[in-house]
Amino acid sequence: MTISQLLKSRVRYAPYLNRVKEAHELIPLFKSGQYLGWSGFTGVGTPKCVPEALVDHVEQNDLQGKLQFNLFVGASAGPEEELWAQNGMILRRAPHQVGKPIAKAINQGRIKFFDKHLSMFPQDLTYGFYTRDRTDGKILDYMIIEATAIKEDGSIVPGPSVGGSPEFVSVSDKIIVEVNTATPSFEGIHDIDMPVLPPYRQPYPYTKVDQKSGLDSIPVDPERVVAIVESTTRDKVPPNTPSDEMSKGIAANLVEFFRDEVNHGRLPPNLLPLQSGIGNIANAVIEGLAGANFKHLNVWTEVLQDSFLDLFDNGSLDYATATSVRLTEKGFERAFENWEHFKHKLCLRSQVVSNSPEIIRRLGVIAMNTPVEVDIYAHANSTNVNGSRMLNGLGGSADFLRNAKLSIMHCPSARPTKTDPTGISSIVPMVSHVDQTEHDLDVVVTEQGLADLRGLAPRERSREIIKQCAHPDYKDLLMDYVQKSEHYAAKHNCMHEPHMLRNALKFHTNLQEKGTMKVAEWDPVD
Amino acid sequence: MTISQLLKSRVRYAPYLNRVKEAHELIPLFKSGQYLGWSGFTGVGTPKCVPEALVDHVEQNDLQGKLQFNLFVGASAGPEEELWAQNGMILRRAPHQVGKPIAKAINQGRIKFFDKHLSMFPQDLTYGFYTRDRTDGKILDYMIIEATAIKEDGSIVPGPSVGGSPEFVSVSDKIIVEVNTATPSFEGIHDIDMPVLPPYRQPYPYTKVDQKSGLDSIPVDPERVVAIVESTTRDKVPPNTPSDEMSKGIAANLVEFFRDEVNHGRLPPNLLPLQSGIGNIANAVIEGLAGANFKHLNVWTEVLQDSFLDLFDNGSLDYATATSVRLTEKGFERAFENWEHFKHKLCLRSQVVSNSPEIIRRLGVIAMNTPVEVDIYAHANSTNVNGSRMLNGLGGSADFLRNAKLSIMHCPSARPTKTDPTGISSIVPMVSHVDQTEHDLDVVVTEQGLADLRGLAPRERSREIIKQCAHPDYKDLLMDYVQKSEHYAAKHNCMHEPHMLRNALKFHTNLQEKGTMKVAEWDPVD
Repeated sequence: MTISQLLKSRVRYAPYLNRVKEAHELIPLFKSGQYLGWSGFTGVGTPKCVPEALVDHVEQNDLQGKLQFNLFVGASAGPEEELWAQNGMILRRAPHQVGKPIAKAINQGRIKFFDKHLSMFPQDLTYGFYTRDRTDGKILDYMIIEATAIKEDGSIVPGPSVGGSPEFVSVSDKIIVEVNTATPSFEGIHDIDMPVLPPYRQPYPYTKVDQKSGLDSIPVDPERVVAIVESTTRDKVPPNTPSDEMSKGIAANLVEFFRDEVNHGRLPPNLLPLQSGIGNIANAVIEGLAGANFKHLNVWTEVLQDSFLDLFDNGSLDYATATSVRLTEKGFERAFENWEHFKHKLCLRSQVVSNSPEIIRRLGVIAMNTPVEVDIYAHANSTNVNGSRMLNGLGGSADFLRNAKLSIMHCPSARPTKTDPTGISSIVPMVSHVDQTEHDLDVVVTEQGLADLRGLAPRERSREIIKQCAHPDYKDLLMDYVQKSEHYAAKHNCMHEPHMLRNALKFHTNLQEKGTMKVAEWDPVD
Repeated sequence: MTISQLLKSRVRYAPYLNRVKEAHELIPLFKSGQYLGWSGFTGVGTPKCVPEALVDHVEQNDLQGKLQFNLFVGASAGPEEELWAQNGMILRRAPHQVGKPIAKAINQGRIKFFDKHLSMFPQDLTYGFYTRDRTDGKILDYMIIEATAIKEDGSIVPGPSVGGSPEFVSVSDKIIVEVNTATPSFEGIHDIDMPVLPPYRQPYPYTKVDQKSGLDSIPVDPERVVAIVESTTRDKVPPNTPSDEMSKGIAANLVEFFRDEVNHGRLPPNLLPLQSGIGNIANAVIEGLAGANFKHLNVWTEVLQDSFLDLFDNGSLDYATATSVRLTEKGFERAFENWEHFKHKLCLRSQVVSNSPEIIRRLGVIAMNTPVEVDIYAHANSTNVNGSRMLNGLGGSADFLRNAKLSIMHCPSARPTKTDPTGISSIVPMVSHVDQTEHDLDVVVTEQGLADLRGLAPRERSREIIKQCAHPDYKDLLMDYVQKSEHYAAKHNCMHEPHMLRNALKFHTNLQEKGTMKVAEWDPVD
């Protein structure tokens, strides 16, 4: 077949050029039940051609539900993953996903999804934990990885994300590389740590966000690379939701808190490395910081979004490192225009490193994430609505919130239901699912205010959270729960963290049955 | 005053000998509301004379509830702490406690207790997080620390525990040292890392359990040492509960699991460094390992108990490191007889290091701890009975279970109530309090069997846990909950982790109201 000049310019290891294939030629390699790894993280840097060719194959041959795979991606992949979900091509999936079709398939019980801390998933995969039923001793059958260049030694230069690729490549029987010639080469922006298993591990040497270990590509045994496919489609990230009064209110409360911490000497004037989740609140917080006149900020995070470009542009941000730079098409254009400038202020690492407890704790990261709900004693639910319905998964929230110097969760105080504009309170008596525990969180913030929970006993926390964070529609109801629970607990000698277990989940059952968390009365307890 | 020859031989920094005092002379230093640190961890290495003198003072002057302190100890202290609780001398307490009087005071609402990961508490204290309301800028007013020797530079050689002492000493305005002359000097057994705050932290260099950094005592500014008190009482640790059929059953299940992991190449023949909690099950597991013919074992744990002496004696164990060696009096005698031998196989570190996520993950520790209860989706409750009543606290369970290579929880499948010998099931539909999440645990084991949860989706986990671990009295009831929950979830598109929220805590309310978890019927849901 003909090989484009563009592809030749990206593939500097000549033997691979004999293995260039069209995606559809690879279909016969795939058998139902195989274990596959994909590159990609939060929808960027994902393989596109081969997954699409398999979708076409399934659709044309009515193989829905018949050609099924165990699919592992660092975090979420892009639209190709949604097509796989719609076509019943995913048997089992970990550790994170985004997108309605895949969430729907999980919640209908058609995909076996399991969730693991993003820092741990790739390592546990290399341990053989997730493939212990395989009799052939293999871990992954194929790793399909997007590259933006191939170096002279055959090693792989990823694109805008590293994710779990180093680990997946290391344990995959065979490797398929999609070289994306539509996106510029990202060579020079990565810092790769290849997995080492205990008892041979060494410390990660990083003591600053801009420190690098030296490897700028993923080493690979060229013999295992069975095909090279040219990919000519860029990643497509939907535009971000603009910030609104609610998210601006949260950002303002946080900026005030940071200023106060600096004034009291608990944070240096340039703060400490920031981690920020995905979504409109996270974006608003970064926008708020951009306008707050902090200087020499640093970022140690999982994902960089468009709002970080503003922080760079106005001179607030010195350096940012992540495992994924998830920009919109506009954002990428803006970054590519100034690529030589950004390239020296940006580093992409594997998710095992970006989310490493070791480094997060050492650097004293400030972690900020959005929960589904938080309870009066500061447990948070990040994953399951009403205890059961999967949203996107845990992601790296617990990697960061457990180990950060300051662990912050931010959310609106209330959300609407179909019948009640404040039918869902983000502050509840007991969360219906726990992902972050009371032992992990320092600060909860809504547009109403900020609760500083450091050093507070549970009964102090309940008052602080309700007073500062709850929506006015729920303040009295929550305090009523607290008082009745304490009355019960005083009688039964359980005043550490008082609950009425009969009513602890009543906000949720009321929501299920009546469309609002506004409970009319509590079940009697004594 | 006269200074004993024994004391002189232990205090090698001469200026301190001018500051030798009797404990009762120090009473005027203490004012209600002060913040105090104590040395000690799991009841060993705690100060004794000064706390006791303060108890006498309170009792003689009827100051109960009037002379009250904010008390911070690395983990639990000894009987002195119980006397403080009984005499209303503790206003606020963190991060862990053991003993009926103090638990009683917490559960009656008389002590404000808060719980934090043991690896984090000392660092967060040094950040000023727990004393942010103080207007004088101080963190601790007094640190009362037990030493077994003082070196020529005035630095402090602790006894059988290090705990939070390095951090507490570093942030205490004044320091009182109790030199214990009844116990041998522990000099040479410690490895001390003093706290460094972000952004200046460096990696912990340890890549093996026996590696040391060099400091064998806690450095201190001698000016801040206001008094030296001779202590002549040894630590008193109550004897361990002997293992029984139940705990031996758990141990046997675990030994079989380890052998299988070795056979499949997922663990090396000498396993990986072991962490084991406190209690009769933990003891039985260590006994089980002692009889299982493993060689060259290593231990990286929080607390060493008597059972580890057997492991050393029979040649299975090469080296053990912890933050506390909590031996019974008999155990200490046995250790002291062979001190020169043990000294080279044992290292005590600060709890920030023994429980460090960085090192636990690097070494690939095998973590084993006992929960109150575990639910069908593998969340565990380590702290609060029926969601509210504090037992001992979190301890280091979450430090280890979150970061270990293998995270194991072991408990009996059922426990008795007053009216039902199996009235409490350790396996419940939903735990009443979450300390370890489903994202943390790999294995749950009871005397019934072992559930290997690695890579399983929630609905697979529920079946595995019920089948392998639940007591026969509860298997059908739990499966009934699963099936009814799945029926509900299929209708409502929430099949990821099916629950009936109306019934999720019914095991617990039934226990509260009827003295058994054997639920007669579920509340209707649709």
